[in-house]
Amino acid sequence: MSVDTAAIETVNQDFYTAIEAGDLDRMTEIWAEDSADEQVSCVHPGWSLLAGRSEVLRSWALIMANTTYIQFVLTDVSTTVLGDVAVLTCVENILTAGDEGESSFAAGKVVASNVYVRTPQGWRLWMHHGSPVLQGDDDEEDGELEH
Amino acid sequence: MSVDTAAIETVNQDFYTAIEAGDLDRMTEIWAEDSADEQVSCVHPGWSLLAGRSEVLRSWALIMANTTYIQFVLTDVSTTVLGDVAVLTCVENILTAGDEGESSFAAGKVVASNVYVRTPQGWRLWMHHGSPVLQGDDDEEDGELEH
Repeated sequence: MSVDTAAIETVNQDFYTAIEAGDLDRMTEIWAEDSADEQVSCVHPGWSLLAGRSEVLRSWALIMANTTYIQFVLTDVSTTVLGDVAVLTCVENILTAGDEGESSFAAGKVVASNVYVRTPQGWRLWMHHGSPVLQGDDDEEDGELEH
Repeated sequence: MSVDTAAIETVNQDFYTAIEAGDLDRMTEIWAEDSADEQVSCVHPGWSLLAGRSEVLRSWALIMANTTYIQFVLTDVSTTVLGDVAVLTCVENILTAGDEGESSFAAGKVVASNVYVRTPQGWRLWMHHGSPVLQGDDDEEDGELEH
């Protein structure tokens, strides 16, 4: 793992830790700044696309305000550095709880593509796209692809 | 729109035209080559992540073989060029038909994030992530975000 890759994966872990902790300040630091005519983008599982820093951060504030407990275990983390851009894909194995506490724990799996850009302040998040895994597990998919 | 942006959006349109036409040869040209330890990635709506050129192209062959008719109308196309990388987001408004012809037409909406890389052969697709839009339309979402 290169130095770059380690730095990117550290920020990526910080991103999920910020969600777990409901830390909107840290989330605000992790996202890149919009430029004159280009905007960061975020797709939450099952949502339409959100564009622009203010809309994206507002969505995180909303999610954090409505989340009692959430825990991410990341697997299959894979990072590609292309100049000053990094494409990181991972699987978010999610454990959540609703207002009813332990009786309402639920587990889910989301596949995420995260794009980071190199800035003077370090790697910042330019795009997050998470989507629900609706069909069976990987083995079934492999079967469909007729290995 | 810069020259670069126009070139990227042309390749992006070619990508969807290739799906519509069931043109696996064109699809093969559009995807970038894997490098030594880095692989292209593709997430179809509701699927797990596919990594590597051969797995990704096999999935497209499977989808093409099982698609009677599909038409894409792209909206909200937005392209950011970051050095030799471009992040393009768009909404895929999809019309499909099953084996029963007109009686089985269905419409759907998918949000897509596509990452292209600049190569000596032009812009090539490095990552495609498409996800189903499960909740209400944009206006409802805006309402939830308490505009």
